[in-house]
Amino acid sequence: MRLALGCEVSYDVLDTATLIFNIEAMRGGRQQVLNEQLVVNPNLVADEKTAPESGNRYLRLTAPPGYLNVRYTAEIELDPLHNAPAFIAEVPVATLPIDTLPYLNASRYCPSDQLARFANRQFGNIAPGFGRVVEICNWINGEVDYQFGTSDSATTAAGTFSTRAGVCRDFAHLGITFCRALGIPARFVSCYAWQLEPQDFHAVFEAYLGDRWYLFDPTRMASLDGMVRIAIGRDAADTAFATIFGAVNPRNVWVWANALDQNTSAEWTTDAVSTTQD
Amino acid sequence: MRLALGCEVSYDVLDTATLIFNIEAMRGGRQQVLNEQLVVNPNLVADEKTAPESGNRYLRLTAPPGYLNVRYTAEIELDPLHNAPAFIAEVPVATLPIDTLPYLNASRYCPSDQLARFANRQFGNIAPGFGRVVEICNWINGEVDYQFGTSDSATTAAGTFSTRAGVCRDFAHLGITFCRALGIPARFVSCYAWQLEPQDFHAVFEAYLGDRWYLFDPTRMASLDGMVRIAIGRDAADTAFATIFGAVNPRNVWVWANALDQNTSAEWTTDAVSTTQD
Amino acid sequence: MRLALGCEVSYDVLDTATLIFNIEAMRGGRQQVLNEQLVVNPNLVADEKTAPESGNRYLRLTAPPGYLNVRYTAEIELDPLHNAPAFIAEVPVATLPIDTLPYLNASRYCPSDQLARFANRQFGNIAPGFGRVVEICNWINGEVDYQFGTSDSATTAAGTFSTRAGVCRDFAHLGITFCRALGIPARFVSCYAWQLEPQDFHAVFEAYLGDRWYLFDPTRMASLDGMVRIAIGRDAADTAFATIFGAVNPRNVWVWANALDQNTSAEWTTDAVSTTQD
Amino acid sequence: MRLALGCEVSYDVLDTATLIFNIEAMRGGRQQVLNEQLVVNPNLVADEKTAPESGNRYLRLTAPPGYLNVRYTAEIELDPLHNAPAFIAEVPVATLPIDTLPYLNASRYCPSDQLARFANRQFGNIAPGFGRVVEICNWINGEVDYQFGTSDSATTAAGTFSTRAGVCRDFAHLGITFCRALGIPARFVSCYAWQLEPQDFHAVFEAYLGDRWYLFDPTRMASLDGMVRIAIGRDAADTAFATIFGAVNPRNVWVWANALDQNTSAEWTTDAVSTTQD
Repeated sequence: MRLALGCEVSYDVLDTATLIFNIEAMRGGRQQVLNEQLVVNPNLVADEKTAPESGNRYLRLTAPPGYLNVRYTAEIELDPLHNAPAFIAEVPVATLPIDTLPYLNASRYCPSDQLARFANRQFGNIAPGFGRVVEICNWINGEVDYQFGTSDSATTAAGTFSTRAGVCRDFAHLGITFCRALGIPARFVSCYAWQLEPQDFHAVFEAYLGDRWYLFDPTRMASLDGMVRIAIGRDAADTAFATIFGAVNPRNVWVWANALDQNTSAEWTTDAVSTTQD
Repeated sequence: MRLALGCEVSYDVLDTATLIFNIEAMRGGRQQVLNEQLVVNPNLVADEKTAPESGNRYLRLTAPPGYLNVRYTAEIELDPLHNAPAFIAEVPVATLPIDTLPYLNASRYCPSDQLARFANRQFGNIAPGFGRVVEICNWINGEVDYQFGTSDSATTAAGTFSTRAGVCRDFAHLGITFCRALGIPARFVSCYAWQLEPQDFHAVFEAYLGDRWYLFDPTRMASLDGMVRIAIGRDAADTAFATIFGAVNPRNVWVWANALDQNTSAEWTTDAVSTTQD
Repeated sequence: MRLALGCEVSYDVLDTATLIFNIEAMRGGRQQVLNEQLVVNPNLVADEKTAPESGNRYLRLTAPPGYLNVRYTAEIELDPLHNAPAFIAEVPVATLPIDTLPYLNASRYCPSDQLARFANRQFGNIAPGFGRVVEICNWINGEVDYQFGTSDSATTAAGTFSTRAGVCRDFAHLGITFCRALGIPARFVSCYAWQLEPQDFHAVFEAYLGDRWYLFDPTRMASLDGMVRIAIGRDAADTAFATIFGAVNPRNVWVWANALDQNTSAEWTTDAVSTTQD
Repeated sequence: MRLALGCEVSYDVLDTATLIFNIEAMRGGRQQVLNEQLVVNPNLVADEKTAPESGNRYLRLTAPPGYLNVRYTAEIELDPLHNAPAFIAEVPVATLPIDTLPYLNASRYCPSDQLARFANRQFGNIAPGFGRVVEICNWINGEVDYQFGTSDSATTAAGTFSTRAGVCRDFAHLGITFCRALGIPARFVSCYAWQLEPQDFHAVFEAYLGDRWYLFDPTRMASLDGMVRIAIGRDAADTAFATIFGAVNPRNVWVWANALDQNTSAEWTTDAVSTTQD
């Protein structure tokens, strides 16, 4: 599947400030960046770095007072792998790769220590494997209301669990939290999402199963096959599309992701099918 | 400085369980492991791995029901570097190394987003540099009571900030939180600590200043020059000395760290002198 | 049913301190105090007051440094009323007595605002009435583990809801919280409880149904018919058995409640039968 | 001082709902209601009750689907008492009136247990009396930013203490919390406030000193002498201007309070002068 996507963000910089953007599509795995353009206005010197561990791509600018606009566009080829869910196993902690272990730890928005007892009560008796993570997503989708304005940037998965309402990042945090509580490494993914309505940066999660990271979206608001990963991290604290140091007022954010293929189907993968871009 | 240190931990394993220990001294930097022994009783197959990013050393065991004892002993040579505090600068966010950026993010126990306004009110007008982190430690030492039983494994730095009481890990979490809120990368360090009373695993933090990570201990309970680093991480969630998957009851923990040099001074470095083992 | 009950509490008073005790059995309703004795050692002047609104009985002392011992013993006659559960209705908010309205409000340990969505999802479709509160108790009893050491004096019902573990006061807080979220006035009750094992002050709750306050105990650890009410309040913040102003170290607490009747049955009322001492 | 004040609130009632309003000026003490009108549109049967303990006046309606508008207007005569601050003492816990004791307890938004250590560190050495509560207000005014959008209906005083930002209700909650932690009974007051900009319901607090409740406003946004009390309670959970049971969407809230006297001074009482309407 081929997508034309991008975003445009603008700010009023009140005093010289440093901004770190993380808006570019990740390279590698089953996600190929065919071409991309980045336009910064005014035309500032930008420091571009890819974090070796995560593959997250950072654009760092120091902007003078005034208007700042950053526009990113790209064409992406996705070639998602679909393995048969029944054959995708959980990996015992005893044999998990060493670099997946940090994704078992509690994090800012995913206090898996606090929800461990519930996770084991609710999901502990489900057969381990891909299907158990699907059950976690089903539970979240059924028990939590998707509603704007019910959460904010301080909301943790324990908060969402109590209030039973949130948005995509809260749904992802809850999924991650339950997985970790069960011994399944899980990480947060920010992405562009084809057919997401309304268009915005989206948040989903990946669980480590079999020999790779599989995508899950408890909101079921977009096709897993149409997700273009921007950043991975412990949770939303690691994947902000913009981190601002200084006095800056945000103005606008536009995000888009359109299919370029003529015959791309509008229907999308449900959780009954595995998807990985890893 | 040369130290003989170690720990011994024991458990009642109720049902086959996997345990991941992180008790071995880190190798490298200014901390040299001269020799070390690890004895597991019963004599189980152990998986030993060093995480490439952090250098944390993991010992992973799957233990059958029954008594489990793990004993680690080592001789360590420390060669701490002392730079003149006045010449150790903060690094502007615009030029921070890419691998220090995750240590600016909020984490499970260090919600730097929540304490940002206070941190900037209290420490924002202090001249940037090593001395500012010393001021943070002074504030914590003066305003927070060190008292066992006032915090638990769920306590965050925001909690400690409100209740004004805690133990070494809470002190470290608060220091990390303030640093991050000011744009200074900071990370948690678990360690063996010479002269710590009572002996136990100790928790301090490192801030990235100049071109390296410097040690800080807001508790001032032991010499920075006598700290042997075991693990680094975002916060205590990353550095547990034992992470247990399964039904296991802890029995005992012993920790020790003794100077081997004849003429090791009993006095210790205050925060007015920089120390790094990095 | 006739009970001989009491408690003995002792302290080391470090510096002149004021203590307010709330340990005496309430008078009135279906709970008759046949006789009682209060012995304070040393023999201090005590201020005894009954709060007009609640009926809570306060014993206020100012104690000099030294040992302090307070012993309360009483014989109580309970004459609980049992109405048929099927005929005990919820009272619409439109007609609730004015003095029950405060018991709809969120309180320190009962943040009914935060759990409102869950309460309505889980219990909103159950037929209103006594049976709905029984269902709430059943849910708590089934979904929360009774376990010492899993909560502390700062634990709210939202915390217990997340961690799924607690003790009697946490169970009561959760029941109150759900009731209030559904528009049912509910209040906290501290009590002596016949046959409670181990003996201690107990915590249950009352919901306002029909024309009075009915007792509920989600722990099901003792007979509702053998509960002697000490204090009522919004939650545990209102019903501490001792509130201390000054430097005082607690030493011991003993509590007992024994049946005086020869033929008192050991079996106890389940939630299928209503009980009120009001 | 004579004020013409009132409010108008409107709703879209989606399904038959019960609403409890608490918008009418309290009667009694130094606050005299000269005349008042209440207009409900549509013209529903309303249940009007005054809570005996608090004096809060409740208007209870059950409204059919459709538009609902409630308008309250009143003329109020205030005759505040000003005692000399230097002669207003704190009351030792040993002699506090029994009905002030509940206002020492922690409540939903005022977790005085959690901030006790800080309160005693910061304010414990200040001479007891009216001046100490003024110091508490000074501290809040100096250390907390008044800023809309920084808090919400779930924010506690511990949260405000950490984030150092909030609005009038948060300022009042923090003041109450510190007072209670020091053994000074304190309660929340919702009010109409002359000269408040922008006009809205205001929130302040009262502390029990000497022989009565004195008003304090840590925001210093309006004259204490021009405050017309609507409701008192433990905290904001007890004093909502509208409590809604059912599916109702709020539309508008207007509030006003104008001086009727020709020569009313625009300057206002600072905290250096005591004010009580009690």
